[in-house]
Amino acid sequence: MRRIFIINGPNLNMLGTRQPEIYGSDTLADIETDCREKAKQLNVEIDFFQSNHEGEIVTAIQQARGHFDAVIINPAAYSHTSVAIMDALLACDMKVVEVHLSNIHRREKFRRHSYVSMAADGVICGFGKQGYLLALEAAASFFK
Amino acid sequence: MRRIFIINGPNLNMLGTRQPEIYGSDTLADIETDCREKAKQLNVEIDFFQSNHEGEIVTAIQQARGHFDAVIINPAAYSHTSVAIMDALLACDMKVVEVHLSNIHRREKFRRHSYVSMAADGVICGFGKQGYLLALEAAASFFK
Amino acid sequence: MRRIFIINGPNLNMLGTRQPEIYGSDTLADIETDCREKAKQLNVEIDFFQSNHEGEIVTAIQQARGHFDAVIINPAAYSHTSVAIMDALLACDMKVVEVHLSNIHRREKFRRHSYVSMAADGVICGFGKQGYLLALEAAASFFK
Amino acid sequence: MRRIFIINGPNLNMLGTRQPEIYGSDTLADIETDCREKAKQLNVEIDFFQSNHEGEIVTAIQQARGHFDAVIINPAAYSHTSVAIMDALLACDMKVVEVHLSNIHRREKFRRHSYVSMAADGVICGFGKQGYLLALEAAASFFK
Amino acid sequence: MRRIFIINGPNLNMLGTRQPEIYGSDTLADIETDCREKAKQLNVEIDFFQSNHEGEIVTAIQQARGHFDAVIINPAAYSHTSVAIMDALLACDMKVVEVHLSNIHRREKFRRHSYVSMAADGVICGFGKQGYLLALEAAASFFK
Amino acid sequence: MRRIFIINGPNLNMLGTRQPEIYGSDTLADIETDCREKAKQLNVEIDFFQSNHEGEIVTAIQQARGHFDAVIINPAAYSHTSVAIMDALLACDMKVVEVHLSNIHRREKFRRHSYVSMAADGVICGFGKQGYLLALEAAASFFK
Amino acid sequence: MRRIFIINGPNLNMLGTRQPEIYGSDTLADIETDCREKAKQLNVEIDFFQSNHEGEIVTAIQQARGHFDAVIINPAAYSHTSVAIMDALLACDMKVVEVHLSNIHRREKFRRHSYVSMAADGVICGFGKQGYLLALEAAASFFK
Amino acid sequence: MRRIFIINGPNLNMLGTRQPEIYGSDTLADIETDCREKAKQLNVEIDFFQSNHEGEIVTAIQQARGHFDAVIINPAAYSHTSVAIMDALLACDMKVVEVHLSNIHRREKFRRHSYVSMAADGVICGFGKQGYLLALEAAASFFK
Amino acid sequence: MRRIFIINGPNLNMLGTRQPEIYGSDTLADIETDCREKAKQLNVEIDFFQSNHEGEIVTAIQQARGHFDAVIINPAAYSHTSVAIMDALLACDMKVVEVHLSNIHRREKFRRHSYVSMAADGVICGFGKQGYLLALEAAASFFK
Amino acid sequence: MRRIFIINGPNLNMLGTRQPEIYGSDTLADIETDCREKAKQLNVEIDFFQSNHEGEIVTAIQQARGHFDAVIINPAAYSHTSVAIMDALLACDMKVVEVHLSNIHRREKFRRHSYVSMAADGVICGFGKQGYLLALEAAASFFK
Amino acid sequence: MRRIFIINGPNLNMLGTRQPEIYGSDTLADIETDCREKAKQLNVEIDFFQSNHEGEIVTAIQQARGHFDAVIINPAAYSHTSVAIMDALLACDMKVVEVHLSNIHRREKFRRHSYVSMAADGVICGFGKQGYLLALEAAASFFK
Amino acid sequence: MRRIFIINGPNLNMLGTRQPEIYGSDTLADIETDCREKAKQLNVEIDFFQSNHEGEIVTAIQQARGHFDAVIINPAAYSHTSVAIMDALLACDMKVVEVHLSNIHRREKFRRHSYVSMAADGVICGFGKQGYLLALEAAASFFK
Repeated sequence: MRRIFIINGPNLNMLGTRQPEIYGSDTLADIETDCREKAKQLNVEIDFFQSNHEGEIVTAIQQARGHFDAVIINPAAYSHTSVAIMDALLACDMKVVEVHLSNIHRREKFRRHSYVSMAADGVICGFGKQGYLLALEAAASFFK
Repeated sequence: MRRIFIINGPNLNMLGTRQPEIYGSDTLADIETDCREKAKQLNVEIDFFQSNHEGEIVTAIQQARGHFDAVIINPAAYSHTSVAIMDALLACDMKVVEVHLSNIHRREKFRRHSYVSMAADGVICGFGKQGYLLALEAAASFFK
Repeated sequence: MRRIFIINGPNLNMLGTRQPEIYGSDTLADIETDCREKAKQLNVEIDFFQSNHEGEIVTAIQQARGHFDAVIINPAAYSHTSVAIMDALLACDMKVVEVHLSNIHRREKFRRHSYVSMAADGVICGFGKQGYLLALEAAASFFK
Repeated sequence: MRRIFIINGPNLNMLGTRQPEIYGSDTLADIETDCREKAKQLNVEIDFFQSNHEGEIVTAIQQARGHFDAVIINPAAYSHTSVAIMDALLACDMKVVEVHLSNIHRREKFRRHSYVSMAADGVICGFGKQGYLLALEAAASFFK
Repeated sequence: MRRIFIINGPNLNMLGTRQPEIYGSDTLADIETDCREKAKQLNVEIDFFQSNHEGEIVTAIQQARGHFDAVIINPAAYSHTSVAIMDALLACDMKVVEVHLSNIHRREKFRRHSYVSMAADGVICGFGKQGYLLALEAAASFFK
Repeated sequence: MRRIFIINGPNLNMLGTRQPEIYGSDTLADIETDCREKAKQLNVEIDFFQSNHEGEIVTAIQQARGHFDAVIINPAAYSHTSVAIMDALLACDMKVVEVHLSNIHRREKFRRHSYVSMAADGVICGFGKQGYLLALEAAASFFK
Repeated sequence: MRRIFIINGPNLNMLGTRQPEIYGSDTLADIETDCREKAKQLNVEIDFFQSNHEGEIVTAIQQARGHFDAVIINPAAYSHTSVAIMDALLACDMKVVEVHLSNIHRREKFRRHSYVSMAADGVICGFGKQGYLLALEAAASFFK
Repeated sequence: MRRIFIINGPNLNMLGTRQPEIYGSDTLADIETDCREKAKQLNVEIDFFQSNHEGEIVTAIQQARGHFDAVIINPAAYSHTSVAIMDALLACDMKVVEVHLSNIHRREKFRRHSYVSMAADGVICGFGKQGYLLALEAAASFFK
Repeated sequence: MRRIFIINGPNLNMLGTRQPEIYGSDTLADIETDCREKAKQLNVEIDFFQSNHEGEIVTAIQQARGHFDAVIINPAAYSHTSVAIMDALLACDMKVVEVHLSNIHRREKFRRHSYVSMAADGVICGFGKQGYLLALEAAASFFK
Repeated sequence: MRRIFIINGPNLNMLGTRQPEIYGSDTLADIETDCREKAKQLNVEIDFFQSNHEGEIVTAIQQARGHFDAVIINPAAYSHTSVAIMDALLACDMKVVEVHLSNIHRREKFRRHSYVSMAADGVICGFGKQGYLLALEAAASFFK
Repeated sequence: MRRIFIINGPNLNMLGTRQPEIYGSDTLADIETDCREKAKQLNVEIDFFQSNHEGEIVTAIQQARGHFDAVIINPAAYSHTSVAIMDALLACDMKVVEVHLSNIHRREKFRRHSYVSMAADGVICGFGKQGYLLALEAAASFFK
Repeated sequence: MRRIFIINGPNLNMLGTRQPEIYGSDTLADIETDCREKAKQLNVEIDFFQSNHEGEIVTAIQQARGHFDAVIINPAAYSHTSVAIMDALLACDMKVVEVHLSNIHRREKFRRHSYVSMAADGVICGFGKQGYLLALEAAASFFK
């Protein structure tokens, strides 16, 4: 059974209360619940992780190596500023799917560039919670 | 039953033979077949369209208005140069999903900017043919 | 009697329904009606043309040569992206008036630059339908 | 009867002698005469003002508030450098028409950007003296 | 016998009358006549094509595949704005020679960049009609 | 007793009526009243000055030299465009506090750069009328 | 009684010994002492926090939500690089005052831009230790 | 006898006391004295003028027309920001010599660009008071 | 005996397995071993540290102050994004040598700029593991 | 008989051994041989020159004046950096053809700009050795 | 007696024949003659040097050290491209006057920046041959 | 025995007297002496070369090919401006070490970019004379 690691970046633990007009009213727990259900349907195993620390995310990616087949990452604010996370993803030998809740191309200019995109196989943005489920399908489809 | 219009931009009719190291070996007909199958599963109706003409794509979007609930568009080269297609999408009152076969963020700099993204609800890129199926799911999920 | 050719670019056929908070509620037919009335007052003859195709607009400008004394053009989205239309206007020996319904200088940055302005004698923007009537007066005044 | 205030920026008092190949041979007095005639036809009242001082123009705009319904302004060189005039226009509750004698989009790069355009309802440029008369019509049409 | 396809972009059908101080007084028919004569000397077969439509040029390039050994293209205005034509050339497996009548490096800044150059094997510019004949020789020399 | 000169730039005489959603509903007279009260508490003497003229502000700063110990300046629009005011402040040997009613870093891009900041000891922005009182305290604290 | 949370970014624990020609000779403990005294005068309660970790600052802001009425933050180096802190501030429903010891507008270019300013109500810079006391007054004044 | 008008921009009335490490210890009166002496030697007549007002400098240039053969101008801060002064110089039919006390090319970046240079026949900078005397010689030499 | 602190940034713990075509096949342990041997030869004492956390590196630098004479730092991804590490180095009174395994000037554009270089005495890049030994020699030579 | 001067810039004496994947395996002597043969066919006389020195190339161009009718120049690296060679070509009254072995528009960004192109009548690039022969034909055709 | 070294850069040996509409009809010999005459009046000794070689100019400046009191340099094309000449001037302990025949600020953009200006005490441009004489006076005045 | 060629660019012959606060008080002869001593220790043979001429450096690199195993180059000012030297290094099949006396990343912006770095295996800067000795060790280590 394939294993997929879902990584959530800074402030995503605030979902539901944080600027719901941008990020929607689902909490991260809601997203995890839906992801676990979807994982069952797709017959994959998942781990779900959130951190506000760039360094912890780097370490998590490093430790995923060998234990997971793919990473789904919503790097949130670190998308735009973290070369370290990009480098960690490039150093791991896993498939990478980047996901964003909002369509970052319709927001402030600095949000339109993501270092992580340069290390990802594919990117999904703008679909809210649904984006995570699409990302799971996308990740699962790599191994068909 | 919801109706979804799938629009394909210039040179996508060359898929399969065109730079397969970037765009894969599936033809546009293969993609259409898979989309039609997926559409059945999702219980939506689709139309599938390709044009090399910016103007024809603009017109197609305009005419879709009132007949379709959502547009899935792979604008290909016009992503980067067409304000007219962006304006047509903004003028139609439909949900818009943008899809790219390759991860445009890992390619030449001019391919990293898409005018269409500014008119799309969400964007999916880098998953090859699978991206269309994800886009269909994403589009269908707007109406759940 | 002087002849003036009025050219309308992509998506202007959607006027009235297209983002009325930006473009107003007049349809292109309304504008044509008002232009024809104004033309009578000014004692000039007009032709009215709309296309979503850059190439058709280029051809229309070329064919206008020798048959018209002036061109009024609302290039819409092609203002910002079409060197071909600019070149066609430079190649024709007619007076050129550029018109925009909205004040493009208060909108997104990419809308503030118009290639067509570099081939126009004068530019009028921000007055909605009234802008066409002012353009007709401006064009007519070239021949007084 | 509607009242319209026509403001002329620096060096416009030199019209007629100043670089006639760019600005034409009409003097500012000629333009005022024509404007007054046009105003009669349009049944509006006008005031005509010129200053070489950015601060005087700011003050004039402030004082116009409550006494005029619209401002027509040819900011000349201050178009490109004056945030103060833009702010004054934004602070007044009047309709604003910006006018330029030459087509500023065909001139040096620094002349293509106007702060004033960001505070104007509409902009007219490239028609010489005729541009003022069009501006008067445009301004008058706001109140029809 | 080798076959070479000569593609001419927008407004080149106006040659001879269009800004002769830049583009010379030869018409496109004159150029075609000279090309056909040169082709005989070089013992190659040619087709000669002109269009004002970006989409038609894209389609023409696609259809040339398998029928021609090389493409000579004067993309005119589309040099600077068309990623679609560049992509079509990259997707065809033919040799590509880009030709411009004028030396685009001595003209406006936006004319100095050509997307097509990124898909061409070689570029020839500034020699007027003679440039087409040089391009034919260059194309023919690829197969010696 | 220390003397502090409070200088207000263009359009600040319009406060209260000028775009109250940005600048608040206090008038400049209200601000002066509060400043005079605060000055008493701080045991400093103040002068209060407003001008729409860049040159008058330059002259005022020059004349303050030797008569005042510090300048508080809200340069308004001239923040972004006046090297002359910056130079006047550099030429005077007084402490300089720059104050803005709004948080200029959340507004249009051209408002985020202030020449005056390069000549100021400190900057306070975003606190409305309260910003002046903080500036007075800041200025007074320089001499403790 | 209102509660205000004072957050100090990286290297501020080095104050007093760190480049005193830029940052002054006060230690962070000195600043805290003065802040506590000022807080008593203002009748507000404060917490004082320093961290070298971006992630810890993000978490601290999140946890402050509901327990504090305002945040005073000197983000130090993270001002210029942290979208995550900006996002945390935007996600919390507290008033935000940004403070810098030095006038960042007179330093290296990269120090003149602060992401945090885009999430702050107001900004105070250049007054050394005094800036914290002004920030406390500013924060307290929000609730009067 | 030729007449030369010497115009001095903002803050030059502060010379001698203003940042002497940059501008030297000569006062503007010293410079005028030396210029008058030099004028006698060169057998030209001079007028000497200083203003802190952009508008007054514009007007002075306009009024010089017909009364002077050449203008020597040290635009000081307005060099970098005034299109109005540049336009006034372009509108006058006089020879123009621009002079700066300091070598502006060794100072802040914004001081390296002068609008006035685009309207000047020649530019002299970096020689302090001596620069005015060289400018007088340069101006006088135009009429030899 | 001089003491030198060797700091390694994010993902360097992955050396040997991470993109060996760029970073070589030596592990960080190999590098440490070689450094310790070299240190003996040079008669200096070393400490060796790695962290994926920007904040931990900042703290490590701060704590090194007074205990070490020099810092050798390979900031890896944080080179390009961390003002905080640069500030920590500027705040410590130690010699600083920056080292990179690869020649960052031949890689992606964003890797060519290092904030840390602005706080370093010298920089060594492109020599793989050998670079650390050169850095040790360079650091030791500061104290000869 | 017309005389044509062929100038070769730095490192072209290394052709054949220098990066043959970019520049091909022909030596400069091979190119000269082919050029001499082509010259006979075209009935023109040629001189062939190579230098690694910018100054020698400048001098060679100057001395060619009056002795040659046209210059063919492959400026190699100096294309991108030498204003002096551009100026020498502008100062000579000869026809100028610029030639490059590789298609510089598909290489590093700094190779896409050539100062020499601004002084050339025409430019030929990307055809390897054949490009010199085309350049000879182009140069010869100027005199037909 | 003071000694002044006059250095002339590339293509200045072509003066008189080179683009006289820009550079005038004086030859470099004419300029030398006038300079020698002026030198006598000023009671200084001069040497006059021209080279097309950047390296020769660097060497000449180095050798001037100790033998000359000032350098007058017209670096021509090397103004815009030579850091080496700038560095040579910074390394010599002589006064430096930069002179240009034309007003470089009215020409192409790349001519408006001079590296040499950053090493010069003063700059004189736009006065043709007269500029050299003014430079001599300026240089002589340094030693009064 | 391995042979290493040490190349020194313009103005390095002035070391010791040239801006010693930046470049130190060692002369180039001192550096050569130390290099020769170090070479003995490393058991390599060296040649030491200096030139002010870009072209001579290009030629020296070309001639080194086949006679040397590695090049150590301090390109000085030509680092920032010479594509020709970069190309010569790319054309030679030798290891390349770039060395700078000062840390170029702490100096003017134009000194932070080196074309030579793009052709070098490694770069060492900021260690003064010691940098050459480190470069020798680095070069020698390539052959172990």
